[in-house]
Amino acid sequence: MRLTTGWQNTDGTTALERVQFERRDLRDDDIAVRVDHCGVCHSDLHRILGALGEGTLIPGHEFTGTVTAVGPAVSSFVPGEKVAVGTLVDSCGACPMCLAGQENYCYERPTSTYGGVDRIDGTTTKGGYSREYVLREGFAYRLPDGLDSAAAAPLMCAGITMWEPLRAAGIGPGRQVAVAGLGGLGHLGVKLATALGAEVTVLSRTPDKAEDALALGASGLLLTTDDQQMDEARGRFDLILDTISAAHDLSPLLRLTALDGTLAVLGYPFETSVKIMDLVQGRKKLTSSGTGGRRQTAEMLAFCAEHGITADVEVLPSARVQEALDRLAKGDVRYRFVLDLSDLD
Amino acid sequence: MRLTTGWQNTDGTTALERVQFERRDLRDDDIAVRVDHCGVCHSDLHRILGALGEGTLIPGHEFTGTVTAVGPAVSSFVPGEKVAVGTLVDSCGACPMCLAGQENYCYERPTSTYGGVDRIDGTTTKGGYSREYVLREGFAYRLPDGLDSAAAAPLMCAGITMWEPLRAAGIGPGRQVAVAGLGGLGHLGVKLATALGAEVTVLSRTPDKAEDALALGASGLLLTTDDQQMDEARGRFDLILDTISAAHDLSPLLRLTALDGTLAVLGYPFETSVKIMDLVQGRKKLTSSGTGGRRQTAEMLAFCAEHGITADVEVLPSARVQEALDRLAKGDVRYRFVLDLSDLD
Repeated sequence: MRLTTGWQNTDGTTALERVQFERRDLRDDDIAVRVDHCGVCHSDLHRILGALGEGTLIPGHEFTGTVTAVGPAVSSFVPGEKVAVGTLVDSCGACPMCLAGQENYCYERPTSTYGGVDRIDGTTTKGGYSREYVLREGFAYRLPDGLDSAAAAPLMCAGITMWEPLRAAGIGPGRQVAVAGLGGLGHLGVKLATALGAEVTVLSRTPDKAEDALALGASGLLLTTDDQQMDEARGRFDLILDTISAAHDLSPLLRLTALDGTLAVLGYPFETSVKIMDLVQGRKKLTSSGTGGRRQTAEMLAFCAEHGITADVEVLPSARVQEALDRLAKGDVRYRFVLDLSDLD
Repeated sequence: MRLTTGWQNTDGTTALERVQFERRDLRDDDIAVRVDHCGVCHSDLHRILGALGEGTLIPGHEFTGTVTAVGPAVSSFVPGEKVAVGTLVDSCGACPMCLAGQENYCYERPTSTYGGVDRIDGTTTKGGYSREYVLREGFAYRLPDGLDSAAAAPLMCAGITMWEPLRAAGIGPGRQVAVAGLGGLGHLGVKLATALGAEVTVLSRTPDKAEDALALGASGLLLTTDDQQMDEARGRFDLILDTISAAHDLSPLLRLTALDGTLAVLGYPFETSVKIMDLVQGRKKLTSSGTGGRRQTAEMLAFCAEHGITADVEVLPSARVQEALDRLAKGDVRYRFVLDLSDLD
């Protein structure tokens, strides 16, 4: 076994504990990755605070690092290469979703990067808030040259979560996209949609993010508290990326959605009610999706490399993980915390 | 004014009363239609029973008839022509939806065929359970030769309600369509989807409609109470036309929906809750729509003429309207009652 160090949640608070633990010895198709940077996702916070009643866990499912060792059957990577890893590290490989390249929807459940169950030894997976990770090579992606290791880490969860609905809706030049909630997900939604050629509007309850919206590439900010602006924008958007994680009323957003347009709910309120009449009036679609399959993840990374897209990040030494989590809980981050794991050496 | 006769709801029961009432004199672009046949829609029953608290009304919004007089500016019709009329008889004509040919979603509300408010004189519209109707020529459609007047009447509400989601989802050869609820809407959904080239499956809690399903063109019936059948059909359908009007759990239907597939809720439960995770797993879309615009209605009628599609109907003299409504309430109809209004002469 391989000894490493990480940050573990034990008591359902953000005061994670520094622990030593073991990673498995490399299987034939495994690679070992020295984790350089790991993004702090809102779902990490949820799970640390016990939303799923999991007990101890080592979070982290959007990270970049360096290959340090490879199993004998590994063909895609050699030690020294930079890689990126996202929210899943294995899947059944045989169900219709896996065969369609959508391992994220594996009928047998994809293996989550943390808090999942390893398909071979049955152990619980431990995440990227740690100095080393061991996984099957097929679920690691070469980090394209030119993408900063820290700023690229959030692409692996927040980025792909925005990419999939943008691609599914066929967003390109001439299309109108809105982004509700300008956080870790939303700011990447603005960047990706803009780079795809769409005209992008940020939806916000307050005007204080207007400057940021423009800087990220949006054409403007629509104040959702301003009835006149909301009326004028009725039916405008082909796609709304709704990244608001709190429960909220979908009616005002559906009113802004165009004929045959799509409201993609991506902040994952667990259950929500929808007025069917809000869908009827303009034949609107409500959808959601969860991260991405291997094909789209590779496609997204290539697109980001081509367009120079990474997250806007605040990098902290991993020892300051509690500060990152606490400030994230207050929404005090523009727009993603990334932990630098080198302080664990 | 023009005196005519119709069947009016006064006391919130199905015992409609035969009444004489006046239609307006023809405006320049009006036509007068002798109503020959009017379908009995489930929404008629709802509204008669007071769901919307409307008081008296003369229902009926899917009818066929014969032009008897035309206003001086009418250019599309001459007396003696057969026409069909659906759920709307006017719209603003100027909003984005009207300009897109989707008068059914008019931002200023389309004028409903009954229980609506006439845009010029402000009177309440009275429906097709009557011997004469007067409307703007633009909201009447020539009834194609070869379509039976009685059996074609339900195309104007039930038919177009199925046609729009089939077209919006791009249904054609090689696609898998399911129809939940084999009633007035559902049986036309099976016929239209089959004629579009799709493979069609009827979803039902009981096997007793299996023969009918095959006769309508479906390739089979899936028993939704059979766990094994439901498991085997997971992710199979590109489009599910859900015509169930009672509140129901969408989860089992979403489980049957394919990657990027669509569940179209068309039985109009007013509000429904949806588990976002049911949408996530396969990037599924929940949608709805309401009848159709003028363009698609004309398209649907032409398609039905080409493929010889009409509703399966039971025709009753209009004096037996109460029997029709009462049997409809019990689901005792295959698949649509149509009133023959000639007994009102």
